[in-house]
Amino acid sequence: MIAALCGVLLILAFEPGTLANEKFQYEIKQFSVPLDHFSFLSNASFNIRYLANDSYVDKKNPQPPIFFYTGNEGDIEWFAQNSGFVWELAAQQRALVIFAEHRYYGKSLPYGADTFNTSKPEHLAYFTVEQTLEDYAQLITYLRNGKQLPVVAFGGSYGGMLAAWFRMKYPHIVVGALAASAPILQFSDLTRCDLFNMITTAVFETAYNPNCTVNIGRSWKVFESMAATDAGKKQLSDVFHVCDPIKNADDLKEFMDYLENVYGNLAMANYPYNTTFLAPLPANPVRQLCFYLKDLHQNDTDLVASMASALAVYTNYTGSVKCLDYKDSNAGASYDATGWEIQSCNQMVMPMCANSNDTMFRTSNWDFKKVSEDCYKRFHLIPRPYDIVLRYGGRNLEAASNIIFSNGLLDPWSGGGVLQAPNSQITVIIIPEGAHHLDLRKSNPLDPPSVTAARQLEAKVIAQWITDF
Amino acid sequence: MIAALCGVLLILAFEPGTLANEKFQYEIKQFSVPLDHFSFLSNASFNIRYLANDSYVDKKNPQPPIFFYTGNEGDIEWFAQNSGFVWELAAQQRALVIFAEHRYYGKSLPYGADTFNTSKPEHLAYFTVEQTLEDYAQLITYLRNGKQLPVVAFGGSYGGMLAAWFRMKYPHIVVGALAASAPILQFSDLTRCDLFNMITTAVFETAYNPNCTVNIGRSWKVFESMAATDAGKKQLSDVFHVCDPIKNADDLKEFMDYLENVYGNLAMANYPYNTTFLAPLPANPVRQLCFYLKDLHQNDTDLVASMASALAVYTNYTGSVKCLDYKDSNAGASYDATGWEIQSCNQMVMPMCANSNDTMFRTSNWDFKKVSEDCYKRFHLIPRPYDIVLRYGGRNLEAASNIIFSNGLLDPWSGGGVLQAPNSQITVIIIPEGAHHLDLRKSNPLDPPSVTAARQLEAKVIAQWITDF
Repeated sequence: MIAALCGVLLILAFEPGTLANEKFQYEIKQFSVPLDHFSFLSNASFNIRYLANDSYVDKKNPQPPIFFYTGNEGDIEWFAQNSGFVWELAAQQRALVIFAEHRYYGKSLPYGADTFNTSKPEHLAYFTVEQTLEDYAQLITYLRNGKQLPVVAFGGSYGGMLAAWFRMKYPHIVVGALAASAPILQFSDLTRCDLFNMITTAVFETAYNPNCTVNIGRSWKVFESMAATDAGKKQLSDVFHVCDPIKNADDLKEFMDYLENVYGNLAMANYPYNTTFLAPLPANPVRQLCFYLKDLHQNDTDLVASMASALAVYTNYTGSVKCLDYKDSNAGASYDATGWEIQSCNQMVMPMCANSNDTMFRTSNWDFKKVSEDCYKRFHLIPRPYDIVLRYGGRNLEAASNIIFSNGLLDPWSGGGVLQAPNSQITVIIIPEGAHHLDLRKSNPLDPPSVTAARQLEAKVIAQWITDF
Repeated sequence: MIAALCGVLLILAFEPGTLANEKFQYEIKQFSVPLDHFSFLSNASFNIRYLANDSYVDKKNPQPPIFFYTGNEGDIEWFAQNSGFVWELAAQQRALVIFAEHRYYGKSLPYGADTFNTSKPEHLAYFTVEQTLEDYAQLITYLRNGKQLPVVAFGGSYGGMLAAWFRMKYPHIVVGALAASAPILQFSDLTRCDLFNMITTAVFETAYNPNCTVNIGRSWKVFESMAATDAGKKQLSDVFHVCDPIKNADDLKEFMDYLENVYGNLAMANYPYNTTFLAPLPANPVRQLCFYLKDLHQNDTDLVASMASALAVYTNYTGSVKCLDYKDSNAGASYDATGWEIQSCNQMVMPMCANSNDTMFRTSNWDFKKVSEDCYKRFHLIPRPYDIVLRYGGRNLEAASNIIFSNGLLDPWSGGGVLQAPNSQITVIIIPEGAHHLDLRKSNPLDPPSVTAARQLEAKVIAQWITDF
């Protein structure tokens, strides 16, 4: 489950298609940071990357703003290309634009190609939220070059969590933070572990008609009974055009895990216009998928055939994919998904579960012991599931200020988001028609009114922070 | 200079005399903390000590307050015995009293007796402010046992810095902090490095009459010219009853460094009643010392004799000390002073200097390069002089809330204190007649009105935090 979610948090920012016709320009720079900010064991350092564009800056302004994207689990260039709102607002506010790459991602690898060598415990040891925030604090201090400048942090998803935490812990460095779709409450027992899957189910239920979730909910048993025979396994493999035939129970489980992962991804990426996301997606992809599942099928074979057509909305919208690679749990995220899996095994322990009675998903429990054992096996890491709440306060956010928490109600992660302002200095924005950090994307004619309104409010609040500075 | 100052910050809390007739009772407990909170290199842990007294707690109150002293550079029992105000206020507020021992001090040693073995770099590596605050956050979380309780942090001097920083970084854990005489601005170039010595000079100048500082200011050259001959060295050694005769330039320097250190200590401990502080001291000790230096002596020999009498106010008030141990730069602080010297060599880099033109001290420059070299020689540590300002914001405290910064104007450390409130949620208290964190001591009939008023305001503000909780 962790692996799945990891991919999920990550991939939204990845739109390979957009790189081909990049819109946002920047210089790629390097900045040296200590490997370990919080001990005196070693003086080792390494370079993180950051992207910079000063073309909007009013050279006559002695205190130009800095818009600083707190990079998250991926190559920072993807985030830069997929966070158009930062650029649009920078043009308005005449800000210096910085996108900082998170340590251990992209090309910001402390041990180069050997970084993820799990046989060397020191290699993964410094892959934490606090070390990352400190990297950003040092980078901003360097960029300010001794001047007092209004710096605004931006981030989406895990990047939004970082932006919010950055403002909480370094309010002297950033005047405020826009935390878009940042599930900072998706930890410990702050949020029920089945909420993510409940929201996903609700999105599917209302996208076309409720038969969609009935069909998906029924499909698991159909897959299982079909896969009980060799002929059935072959039938499944053929209908779904899988790359690796389903041969045994492990394969079947992997196949079904993959499907669950796809459903979560689709809810997150349920944008109102075409996007390129892992694979290209149509506008309102959940609706498209549910269109194929609009009828209640009495027959197992018919249901499976419909599921296969539905799934192709996600897996093969262009028709160019040769087979379904359900064994690639990192699906398209490649290198960076590994990073997130490691973070899920140290601090970012976000419990997930599901109940088949009230969702379209299979019942699954959150088994921390098993998660922990798997983490040790894979990375020699023992997760610290209370780190984040202890340090960032869980729901106790009364002392925080100048943070915008925006959440789209179509986003499964919104369940772990901040949906009520703890005080008047925190702005909470709910976007009823929004999927995962839609507001952070560039403007689009097909944007629903609620996301346009959200961006306007965000712009106003951020402008006020800069004015007040 | 660092070593001197270290002792200085430390020793105020040390009143060996009070231990003989302890007033405050507590249980001594242990709490296990990770050696390194901020990396996943090791899962090692060790025990820190804390003192607990729940006798004031109203057992019917489901949310009793916790008064939590953020221990600083010494054995926590000394701080408990010398912070009477915490106990007096706990009785009023019916609070659980906790004094937590700072890692690497007292009996909270991560590597036991081998902790300060500088040939093992990992031993000193985790001796930082952030690791310590995290210890306290974990301890409080444990003490709260799942309940929401109003926790107030208390601290004096470096302990006050920790209390303030703790509230800044963990506002979800403590509702507020009393930071008494906490020089959080004595870093980098936030405060001029000669201010400490200027304030000390002013205290001496106004204690009896200005001749005091004229004499002290003149004494350095007298010592130097006298020590130019063997007979003069013997004369100096005899008059001051030194344990180790002054034989060369190094001895003379050490002797003069020691005197400067004593002057700073005296200003800090310039309390209005008898205290036991390294050695027992009379009330208003600076005035007592300056009484011996009230006349301008034309004659070097007379001046030296007066200086020796004056110094005895500090070194031999009881008349029981056999000789002056000027070579013990840790003077009485013993084990714990070593700890502070290490902290001065990692993060607590507080620049100090003096100008003989406007102080009674010898001119000395702040030479970070030399400090750094010495740190490496002694502890294999390379100081990080910007850590503290980067993390805690220097003078940029606008986002902080619920902190009382109290400073006595007779305290040389007040120059590095917060003397202006950055916003309405910060309370600044100036105590014109106060030496170093006098307000944190228990009430005394000889307390000046300004410290009594300070304690009343502190009690009122703290009560409000608890009520608001």
